[in-house]
Amino acid sequence: MEVASEVFRRQGYTGTSIDRLAESMRISKPSLYGTYGDKAQLYLMALEAFADRIGRMAEEALNQEGGLEAAICRYLGCVLEVYFEGGDQGSGCLVMSTAATEAPSQPAVQKFLAEVLARADEVVARRIQRERGDGRGAPSQSDMALARVVTGILVSLSTRARAGESREELQKIVESTAKLICAGY
Amino acid sequence: MEVASEVFRRQGYTGTSIDRLAESMRISKPSLYGTYGDKAQLYLMALEAFADRIGRMAEEALNQEGGLEAAICRYLGCVLEVYFEGGDQGSGCLVMSTAATEAPSQPAVQKFLAEVLARADEVVARRIQRERGDGRGAPSQSDMALARVVTGILVSLSTRARAGESREELQKIVESTAKLICAGY
Repeated sequence: MEVASEVFRRQGYTGTSIDRLAESMRISKPSLYGTYGDKAQLYLMALEAFADRIGRMAEEALNQEGGLEAAICRYLGCVLEVYFEGGDQGSGCLVMSTAATEAPSQPAVQKFLAEVLARADEVVARRIQRERGDGRGAPSQSDMALARVVTGILVSLSTRARAGESREELQKIVESTAKLICAGY
Repeated sequence: MEVASEVFRRQGYTGTSIDRLAESMRISKPSLYGTYGDKAQLYLMALEAFADRIGRMAEEALNQEGGLEAAICRYLGCVLEVYFEGGDQGSGCLVMSTAATEAPSQPAVQKFLAEVLARADEVVARRIQRERGDGRGAPSQSDMALARVVTGILVSLSTRARAGESREELQKIVESTAKLICAGY
């Protein structure tokens, strides 16, 4: 599934042919259809596998010991790590940067994209809430409002990576976002 | 060109056929090729026309009289206006939500996407700088660092609109971003 994710991440859903997938996954077309159904089903499975992987890593980074600013830096830093897998040319996020193109025409993709965004918002909101529970700050905005800004930056880092911005440039955005969230908080 | 932009915005670059474009633009395929070259050239022209239109409107909204928080609200609010053209189902941004998919495989698209992001960063950074010139705040972060967060939110609003989030929900993100930028400032 990781191979399929990589092909879709590079070329998008529509730009990826079944031939190309079968070749990259080193299976025949009939057994691809037999195992995964059609291209749309395989794409959804690839989205799920990618989202699970990056979600698990990022959530773990977010919830390590330490204050909120460092936690957000680790969280978005871990995301950047995945966006820049395989070299200096950032390939970004399979979900954020290819599913958004497909969403208006594929209801299942739209639903999945909405769920991933909501889950990301939720995970960050819980972490911010925990910081408040520790009495480390007075709320200037709701946990969820701040979390939705953090997720927004996560989305945009994928777009910027695919536009060719360097990892160093994006790391600066990670740091200024963490600082901003904690200053407004 | 607006018709072509709409077709590409709905279906993405790869998902749009020349037949569909010719039909929507009400011209024959030969005259489409004759006037615009191939699909890739037409897509770039559509990206340019879209970016010009939204850029001009948003920049004007940003630079009206008033303080920075209201200016950022107007700026991102104007962007939302365009993202929700044509109804409750947000169609987002042609540039942010379809060009990112194409960028890794089409160098001209990648270059254009990078330019649009850089221009957006620049326009917002200048507006923040002007606020500082007016003596309305002490810098906690550089103009450009704050501007790049604002552009990030602009990008993510397109993704969220295409994921089916409502305009009201996205309007709240606009307001919390403006508040956050000014609190951190």
